[in-house]
Amino acid sequence: MKKYAEMTKEELSKEIEELKVQYKKYQDMSLTLDMSRGKPCTEQLDLSMGMMDALNSGVDLRSEDGTDCRNYGGLTGLPEARQLLGDMMENNPSNIIIYGNSSLNVMFDTVSRAMTHGVMGNKPWGKLDKVKFLCPVPGYDRHFAITEYFGIEMIPVPTNEEGPDMDMIEELVSKDEAVKGIWCVPKYANPSGYSYSDYTVRRFARLKPAAKDFRIFWDNAYCVHHLYDDRQDHIIEILAECKRAGNPDLVYKFASTSKITFPGSGLAALATSPNNMEDIKKQLKIQTIGHDKVNQLRHVRFFKDIHGLTEHMKKHADVIRPKFEAVEEALEKNLGELDIGKWTKPNGGYFICFNAREGCAKEIVLLAKKAGVTMTEAGATWPYHEDPHDSDIRIAPTYPPLSELQTAAELFCLCVKLASAQKILENM
Amino acid sequence: MKKYAEMTKEELSKEIEELKVQYKKYQDMSLTLDMSRGKPCTEQLDLSMGMMDALNSGVDLRSEDGTDCRNYGGLTGLPEARQLLGDMMENNPSNIIIYGNSSLNVMFDTVSRAMTHGVMGNKPWGKLDKVKFLCPVPGYDRHFAITEYFGIEMIPVPTNEEGPDMDMIEELVSKDEAVKGIWCVPKYANPSGYSYSDYTVRRFARLKPAAKDFRIFWDNAYCVHHLYDDRQDHIIEILAECKRAGNPDLVYKFASTSKITFPGSGLAALATSPNNMEDIKKQLKIQTIGHDKVNQLRHVRFFKDIHGLTEHMKKHADVIRPKFEAVEEALEKNLGELDIGKWTKPNGGYFICFNAREGCAKEIVLLAKKAGVTMTEAGATWPYHEDPHDSDIRIAPTYPPLSELQTAAELFCLCVKLASAQKILENM
Repeated sequence: MKKYAEMTKEELSKEIEELKVQYKKYQDMSLTLDMSRGKPCTEQLDLSMGMMDALNSGVDLRSEDGTDCRNYGGLTGLPEARQLLGDMMENNPSNIIIYGNSSLNVMFDTVSRAMTHGVMGNKPWGKLDKVKFLCPVPGYDRHFAITEYFGIEMIPVPTNEEGPDMDMIEELVSKDEAVKGIWCVPKYANPSGYSYSDYTVRRFARLKPAAKDFRIFWDNAYCVHHLYDDRQDHIIEILAECKRAGNPDLVYKFASTSKITFPGSGLAALATSPNNMEDIKKQLKIQTIGHDKVNQLRHVRFFKDIHGLTEHMKKHADVIRPKFEAVEEALEKNLGELDIGKWTKPNGGYFICFNAREGCAKEIVLLAKKAGVTMTEAGATWPYHEDPHDSDIRIAPTYPPLSELQTAAELFCLCVKLASAQKILENM
Repeated sequence: MKKYAEMTKEELSKEIEELKVQYKKYQDMSLTLDMSRGKPCTEQLDLSMGMMDALNSGVDLRSEDGTDCRNYGGLTGLPEARQLLGDMMENNPSNIIIYGNSSLNVMFDTVSRAMTHGVMGNKPWGKLDKVKFLCPVPGYDRHFAITEYFGIEMIPVPTNEEGPDMDMIEELVSKDEAVKGIWCVPKYANPSGYSYSDYTVRRFARLKPAAKDFRIFWDNAYCVHHLYDDRQDHIIEILAECKRAGNPDLVYKFASTSKITFPGSGLAALATSPNNMEDIKKQLKIQTIGHDKVNQLRHVRFFKDIHGLTEHMKKHADVIRPKFEAVEEALEKNLGELDIGKWTKPNGGYFICFNAREGCAKEIVLLAKKAGVTMTEAGATWPYHEDPHDSDIRIAPTYPPLSELQTAAELFCLCVKLASAQKILENM
């Protein structure tokens, strides 16, 4: 098929008429489909139902070290939970704190603590005139919401398949003392699905920040979330690399089991240097007596060890891989030759990122909405919800059943075609 | 027996010699006993083991409203969890937010949010020159630790059996705009065990604060923690009373199931006015996607309703009532006639408060320590750990087995006698 941009005005008008007829048919179907949410589907949740049997009234609820998990105490987590999450995050268990059910909450608290009490003895960010964060884009809207909530200025940094623009990051971080942090999703990134190259991670570890209290917020949310057994991304472990580079305190690293067991009822964890740990524990012991140890025990008893968790993740992959493939097939089939959009083909994670022609994303999402398919809001992947190119759209294939997803993907492609054709025609 | 203060120097010296002989015998026993911690004992924890069977892999994990509790979402909590906690707290479920496992964490976050973002549109406390909290004493050390952590000046307010000194509170709150809050444990208070009188609660609800963003931090930690079926304290429900008094937004009310099911694996909750709820939710939706709904469901399925929870609390009372009685008997038997200390006789809660002669508390706790009995640090019940009278000692009878507790209580009385006699002799 001819590329839209190469069509004549008449050809394009005719194409639009045909697309509208198809679009009307979808509207008449009264669909209510959803590709907006990075949520596991029911089949995935069912994979962890065995965890509900891991503990019962006949089971000893003491941890390896004899702690009665039913009672108060244990600020950093059970030894066996730190071991399991340590193996998952590729960190020494002694560098890990097990938190409650939400790594987002841990990130929020980390920024909040820096605002009120500063980082390792430095001036609280809340006492400074200006605090800035670097935000690789497209990125995760809930990260940006935290920094926006605290009045932190966000600077978008472009990314490609290797990760964010490290030249720009090195420049900004080394020259501006107001730059205090950066949001990173280094593996199977939300929303691109791409992972940082070795070179990118090495450059991160070797940053020379002007601010002593600059920290990398390394959200390794998808560390074990592979789609394939034979095609897996691997990234260099950042804490170890920072230590080797003489920058041991540079990173806060976050992870959780939210998309491994049950979102909202999993374990969150933070890995960081001993200095940062001490700094954090000063607050943590005031904030809480401890996190949910029974749930820590439940997770460990269910998985037994990292091998159990790895096998479990293969089952997740088996459920969601066909969904990713269905979306990719629909995109390829419908849009492959039209040159009106690009999309990522990740090896893991929860998202595909679609790059529409400049100025088309909002219209595409609106068209989809009007035909009954909810997409993540256009612009959501940028700070302040402002995508200057109006181009990025996050596609979340995991939640809907496969048949619904196929319909939704077809309709999405139709919306891309319609919005793009109209845009090109306008500009003729 | 003769009161110590009425003894001659010779009589007192002889008494001290005899006490030292007895003390030496205890030291030779190499005891390691603990009356410091407000923790449930193993027998109490066993009462909730049935909760581990409330959910299993064959059970439907959807809530009343159809929510799949295994997935993301649900910022304010499941309807049935809000109902149960609402019945427990005597509040409308719609005025309740169910949190994670720690009400202390909720209180910390509440202060932290006021520091960074202010209360209902008022200036953030962190931007003010001075913020003050009123602290009824003796009080809960972890409350005071939160306000100390945030650099809030703490003003001790004396309490008696009716609650804190309301004349002083009314004066300070109405005249000083820097006074932004007060820590209250209104029922079976930590550590006195006493409950606020109706008149006290009514005066709280009718406060006329100089600061629009003054809030009462009403920690109703022991709302259902009665020791007796026939002797129960009742306090006026504060939110309703504030509403009647035209002060609907005056209170944040906290509670949890920590000492009902498993500390660290329970549910925490906050009840407050619709205005405060809206203010809080603005932060909460940035901080987390939601709390642990599976654990909410587990609690509701275990208790079924407030009647189930009430019956459960009777079992707790049966376990710990003999412990409170054992301590009270030891105190009465050993110290009843000597006029060297007073103690509270609560109808519920987790503590007995012992008032030593002025200047004796630290020495008593030290003597106990040296003979193998750990008490809560003297001074811990005052802001900055500074008890100006060196008098208050918190006794926590619940955790040790009864036989150990009896030994510990006997030794404690001996330490009181020895320290008091020495003090009186010194001052002769």
